[in-house]
Amino acid sequence: MEKQNKQITSRDVDFAKWYTDIVKVAHLADYSAVKGCIIIEPNGYAIWEKMQSILDKKFKELGHVNCQLPLLIPETLLNKEKELVLGFAPEVAWVTMGGEKQLDDRLCIRPTSETLFCDYYKDHIHSYRDLPKLYNQWCNVLRWEKETRPFLRSREFLWQEGHTAHATSIEAELETRQMIEVYKWFFHDILAIPSIVGKKTEKEKFAGAEYTLTNEALMYNGVALQAGTSHYFGQKFSNAYGVKFINKDNKEEFVYQTSWGTTTRMIGGLIMVHSDDYGLVLPPRIAPKQVVIIPIGDNDAHLLAQQINDNLLEHDIVSYIDDSDKSPGFKFAEAEVNGIPIRIEIGSRDLKLNKITFVRRDTLEKIEVSVDTDIVKYVKDLMNKIQTDMYNKAKARRDNMTFEAHNLKEVEDIMNKQPGFIKAMWCGCEECELKMKEIRGTKSRCILENSKAIDDKCVVCGKPAKDLVVWGIQY
Amino acid sequence: MEKQNKQITSRDVDFAKWYTDIVKVAHLADYSAVKGCIIIEPNGYAIWEKMQSILDKKFKELGHVNCQLPLLIPETLLNKEKELVLGFAPEVAWVTMGGEKQLDDRLCIRPTSETLFCDYYKDHIHSYRDLPKLYNQWCNVLRWEKETRPFLRSREFLWQEGHTAHATSIEAELETRQMIEVYKWFFHDILAIPSIVGKKTEKEKFAGAEYTLTNEALMYNGVALQAGTSHYFGQKFSNAYGVKFINKDNKEEFVYQTSWGTTTRMIGGLIMVHSDDYGLVLPPRIAPKQVVIIPIGDNDAHLLAQQINDNLLEHDIVSYIDDSDKSPGFKFAEAEVNGIPIRIEIGSRDLKLNKITFVRRDTLEKIEVSVDTDIVKYVKDLMNKIQTDMYNKAKARRDNMTFEAHNLKEVEDIMNKQPGFIKAMWCGCEECELKMKEIRGTKSRCILENSKAIDDKCVVCGKPAKDLVVWGIQY
Repeated sequence: MEKQNKQITSRDVDFAKWYTDIVKVAHLADYSAVKGCIIIEPNGYAIWEKMQSILDKKFKELGHVNCQLPLLIPETLLNKEKELVLGFAPEVAWVTMGGEKQLDDRLCIRPTSETLFCDYYKDHIHSYRDLPKLYNQWCNVLRWEKETRPFLRSREFLWQEGHTAHATSIEAELETRQMIEVYKWFFHDILAIPSIVGKKTEKEKFAGAEYTLTNEALMYNGVALQAGTSHYFGQKFSNAYGVKFINKDNKEEFVYQTSWGTTTRMIGGLIMVHSDDYGLVLPPRIAPKQVVIIPIGDNDAHLLAQQINDNLLEHDIVSYIDDSDKSPGFKFAEAEVNGIPIRIEIGSRDLKLNKITFVRRDTLEKIEVSVDTDIVKYVKDLMNKIQTDMYNKAKARRDNMTFEAHNLKEVEDIMNKQPGFIKAMWCGCEECELKMKEIRGTKSRCILENSKAIDDKCVVCGKPAKDLVVWGIQY
Repeated sequence: MEKQNKQITSRDVDFAKWYTDIVKVAHLADYSAVKGCIIIEPNGYAIWEKMQSILDKKFKELGHVNCQLPLLIPETLLNKEKELVLGFAPEVAWVTMGGEKQLDDRLCIRPTSETLFCDYYKDHIHSYRDLPKLYNQWCNVLRWEKETRPFLRSREFLWQEGHTAHATSIEAELETRQMIEVYKWFFHDILAIPSIVGKKTEKEKFAGAEYTLTNEALMYNGVALQAGTSHYFGQKFSNAYGVKFINKDNKEEFVYQTSWGTTTRMIGGLIMVHSDDYGLVLPPRIAPKQVVIIPIGDNDAHLLAQQINDNLLEHDIVSYIDDSDKSPGFKFAEAEVNGIPIRIEIGSRDLKLNKITFVRRDTLEKIEVSVDTDIVKYVKDLMNKIQTDMYNKAKARRDNMTFEAHNLKEVEDIMNKQPGFIKAMWCGCEECELKMKEIRGTKSRCILENSKAIDDKCVVCGKPAKDLVVWGIQY
């Protein structure tokens, strides 16, 4: 292995510092003048654009349409749903002046848009014929967090929020479940990150939801990241906001609702699962640029680079040539830092021997390939292989850091040695969750539904256990 | 012509009412609980998504990259550029509370992002090698307007704002001009709206710019709409914010900047140029749905509908079948209200005579076509024809409402009879602009550069004229 990039702290030495180094040297994001509000730089934003395009296509295939609701919510409107207010009140930003005038009703910058969707739906849903409403929006939201970290927890962040209304509880519950499966698919197939899907406990569920399903992944350092949640609201919001309809039996009823969202936090997850001490590592399916071609030497190398590049682009592989006046060594390092999955080096000397060199970013492995190879097919196959290998590597690591515990002592031992996911039985009471929290902040990640019990006693209190729960330290 | 849609006021009776009727019945937007902050409904947002995708592709072809800067700007940072502050201070919204705490430095919700880009560029531009920076962002902005109208003037709106930094003034000026030409191309080729490009007067230019180029269109009622501006900043902002670089001669210099933007207001322009008393009319190139197929009667009609639909979709024509249980008449009206450019009616009776019916939304013309026609080619040709016809019709109307005037009396006569664009010479002084404004609010739209003088005297004061100016009443 070559020498490590000097600007990057080793992830095994100081993971937090390594993370911010990667964000900086790969030009993903920078701090702004307002604490917790980051600047997403072009390299970072390109990843978000690719995430958006893949998820948006999937949402639309499933019948959803996009819309755009306002940034501002009047305090009086927000107050209608008490649980939601209690959940978000401490962390919203308030607009109190418009132009040079004090406002009568303060406006909060949306931390999420349930209230706004309900307020809209109540005027636009009258009959079961108006249902379902399968709306989604891509937008920015703001939560006045105390501790912030680029992508993982920022005051302003970008996300999508789906808000649907249905005529029956079954339909709404199916939607809730379908959308968490979409997030899991996205993590698995696109981001090459294994994740666990389950139900949040009462304490950890979304304010105002009947229940929350969550998509949970484990980072390189064994810390858990919640990325993607899907909430079943039942009739709680429709009751509070008066969203009624006439059902097929000609009776008035409140609609059944869901909401589901995922955010720019996924970029943080990508970094913390796959990247290394040389910089960013991206799975080919989410990499905004998939192949870089670096010609070294005479005209022949440049001509071949051009030919290969054209060929790849024609086959929808996002390739580019680095023909800047920087040194080859500098170009290699830059491609590595930026996480370009495949680097093709075309050297004049190699060309005389009829070969070119492929370098895999994930393994840094060099592969010599004959010029006569079908390059498009080779690149496609290699991208698939990288994608699969990255997933398998992440999964092996996750599995290695997933433990079982049967009492608090075991939990303590694990969390003090090497944090990770801990599977343990739980009696269902909040006091036991709070006890777990005393161990380095260990929280329930999710209840594994329909799973086999691994014990009959609660890991904390020893009383009869109800559910198998995955626990972890969280971002 | 069929009977007019009862929910729509005639545009020749009450244009303002007609406009809001169209916005409502075509489900483009709705009002929210906050004055001036609209809800963009799926039908309206789909138009914005198509605008975004076409413009974004063009921006990227020209070398631009996207990023995302924060929503909030500290008051102290905003204050660095005095002209900008003076221009926007009366119309920004202020965040004064974060969570439950009063903020020391008030935060304004971005009305535009020059200050933020400068603050970012100053840390990321060091040498001419770092230039040019060709950044753009798609986002929401907020301006605390007093008078609001859906799409045309709202407090929150969506837009893109390009912010570029260059090593030379020439390069920056070329960028400024290139981008206004992109907007003009977009209006001409995609929106089928003829527009005029010119320079804003000192009074009308963007606060803090050296000069502003603008794209100006004329609505059905003769009122002008500014849609798309491109600003050349020279070194004004870089001076105020300290954005310096080492040039090729190894000397420190301030960068040369531009910014350019266009907004959801274009949706308002589309409505006011093309739509009619039957609902929305959209040029095929911007229509989110281009063809609707309505089978009427037996199985054969449905089978053929399916076949044609598959065929069109395969050729990248956005087509869909309306096989809901509504009556054919209802479906026809709905397709008209929603502005689907082409409607294909497949009736069982017609099918026996080997024909189907095409209906053009722009002219409401019905065309019988043999089933044996190459439907894909026919639709493509028809879409091109509709696109061209719509442009020509809009241009003829615009030209008919473009006048010349040589004195104030003539301006008054025109504006009192039928407002439109007035071409008239101007001496260059602000007092004359203010005098013009007394005539129904007539304002300079833009200076026509390099154009032939039509008089040697100023239309207002009669003193020697400097420029040919287009004047109009504005939205």
